[in-house]
Amino acid sequence: MGVMRLRIDLGYDGEGFYGWALQPNVRTVQGEVENAIRRILRVPPDDSEDPVRLVVAGRTDTGVHASHQVCHVDVNASTLSRAKGHMRVSAVTALEHRLQRIVPDDIAIHSVSAAPEGFDARFSALERTYVYRIADRGSGVDPRLRGCVLHIDDELDIDAMNQAAAMTIGLHDFGSFATPNPGGTTIREVKRAYWERVPSTPLCAGIAPQAGRVAAKAKAKTKTKAKTKAAAEPTESPESTEATTQSYVVPALESGLVCFTIVADAFARNMVRSLVNACVQIGVGKRDLDWFAGKMEVPEREGSTGPIAPQGLTLEHVAYPPDSQLASRAQSIRAVRTLS
Amino acid sequence: MGVMRLRIDLGYDGEGFYGWALQPNVRTVQGEVENAIRRILRVPPDDSEDPVRLVVAGRTDTGVHASHQVCHVDVNASTLSRAKGHMRVSAVTALEHRLQRIVPDDIAIHSVSAAPEGFDARFSALERTYVYRIADRGSGVDPRLRGCVLHIDDELDIDAMNQAAAMTIGLHDFGSFATPNPGGTTIREVKRAYWERVPSTPLCAGIAPQAGRVAAKAKAKTKTKAKTKAAAEPTESPESTEATTQSYVVPALESGLVCFTIVADAFARNMVRSLVNACVQIGVGKRDLDWFAGKMEVPEREGSTGPIAPQGLTLEHVAYPPDSQLASRAQSIRAVRTLS
Repeated sequence: MGVMRLRIDLGYDGEGFYGWALQPNVRTVQGEVENAIRRILRVPPDDSEDPVRLVVAGRTDTGVHASHQVCHVDVNASTLSRAKGHMRVSAVTALEHRLQRIVPDDIAIHSVSAAPEGFDARFSALERTYVYRIADRGSGVDPRLRGCVLHIDDELDIDAMNQAAAMTIGLHDFGSFATPNPGGTTIREVKRAYWERVPSTPLCAGIAPQAGRVAAKAKAKTKTKAKTKAAAEPTESPESTEATTQSYVVPALESGLVCFTIVADAFARNMVRSLVNACVQIGVGKRDLDWFAGKMEVPEREGSTGPIAPQGLTLEHVAYPPDSQLASRAQSIRAVRTLS
Repeated sequence: MGVMRLRIDLGYDGEGFYGWALQPNVRTVQGEVENAIRRILRVPPDDSEDPVRLVVAGRTDTGVHASHQVCHVDVNASTLSRAKGHMRVSAVTALEHRLQRIVPDDIAIHSVSAAPEGFDARFSALERTYVYRIADRGSGVDPRLRGCVLHIDDELDIDAMNQAAAMTIGLHDFGSFATPNPGGTTIREVKRAYWERVPSTPLCAGIAPQAGRVAAKAKAKTKTKAKTKAAAEPTESPESTEATTQSYVVPALESGLVCFTIVADAFARNMVRSLVNACVQIGVGKRDLDWFAGKMEVPEREGSTGPIAPQGLTLEHVAYPPDSQLASRAQSIRAVRTLS
């Protein structure tokens, strides 16, 4: 029956993990997911036939989150069939359902699927998107988000930070902003990098149904600003005169946060958090753009910034080429990485 | 010098609290904030001159969050002046800064201000806005939000739930959906109530600066859909041909969630969570709209739904009338509540 490669899409809250990568005696995302798969497929640890070893697109550090991570695992088809049990679905779908049920609640399995020919979660990937979220003085603080947002007291100068971010775009050696990689390279291609204060947008379109009217009418498809801020519909109660104040519009949770979005082919170790730290230093006036330009020009870790706190960072996306290009992409990247 | 009334605006993550209201031997929001104020003003517990007793707009239950709660406290002006220390700001501002610094990180003090004449956090309030957040089968699950979102396996029928919600609007006896209030009333006026699946909106406007261009240009003010989904700007690297895939747009965290927004003059005990539970039963097909209509018509707790899990619920807003109407509003509400 041969070996099947499965693609697993998942998310996690990084707070309770020592990062993605398997390590002895500590809780890691890889460890939790591998163990869950072994339990479902009844594979003992260290089984040489079925090692159940995940290969991941973006190894995240301790405390870093992922809303959408991708990994793959190779499993013997005969072993995989054990996932079915009494379920009347394919073995892959059965594994998906069972995994979703048994992983701890800080991991979410988005999907499990048969990987297309040539797919490699790590080497086929075209680009990774990370977002770093900060609540500064201009944001307001929402304690519900403190697990995935860094809070700083100052107000950030977003224009200055964006001027630094713009310098990172293109093919550069990020040696100033990455943990040294002996025998490897810190050259990466940044495709997009920018800071933005999230505009205050309403959580919902907020078309309030009136009493007695069928509520399905509320499904208006156009959501203009004017409509989302529509005043409260006057009610017929005796107190309605004092209720004609403009109705409050609940904002989306992230309204006002300062977010850094960065897209690159791949990232060197600690690169995003070191760049964020450098930009924040600029944003609060502790460093200037000339210093940043110098660090981009001469890749030197000395005198640079270390990584900022992990909890603000989330891996948001991994992009892959069309199925027909998966194998060639993996081959070319593997060649580059091996050279370095 | 007399007594000063202070208005305190705050938010909290309800997970670590046994609700708002002070109780012996357990952690409550009121207890934490009162203790913090006493520490700053050096007032011993049970001080009869300065009891430091908070009066709140919306008493939240165990596990319920608030993004924006309002309370007031009366303090002798001479005691309040102790907040200043060496700070060159008013005593009120000094108290605000110190409180912000010493409260635990699951509480955020948004502001402390001198309350206008006639202000009463509870009795002057015109209306309260709550939101309940659910991740259903159509939402996708983000583990970072599991502390403030209820996860259910089924897909919800939002149209049906909205038909139930529409029946709650107006002045009704919510006895079917509230913990009995002996000697009191469960009559409340719901002003708005609706369910909505949060549209998938981009986190940021996403105007990526190009390398070398001054990034401040990115502050475009119009954010049309077309622009937010702008393709990745082609870069000059040799690999750029394969990077011309449409760039991924990071969605706002709450995209796809099913949210219930409800605004009322006030809420009976457990009313929001019991209504949400009833609507969810309808949304998954376990109860029908006739049953709901009957429970609205005859207020009877028996055969009704109890409160749903607290973690999905957040007090989002408390509205007050213009300063000139604060005292008369408080007087009229106090009279109604005393009668009941």
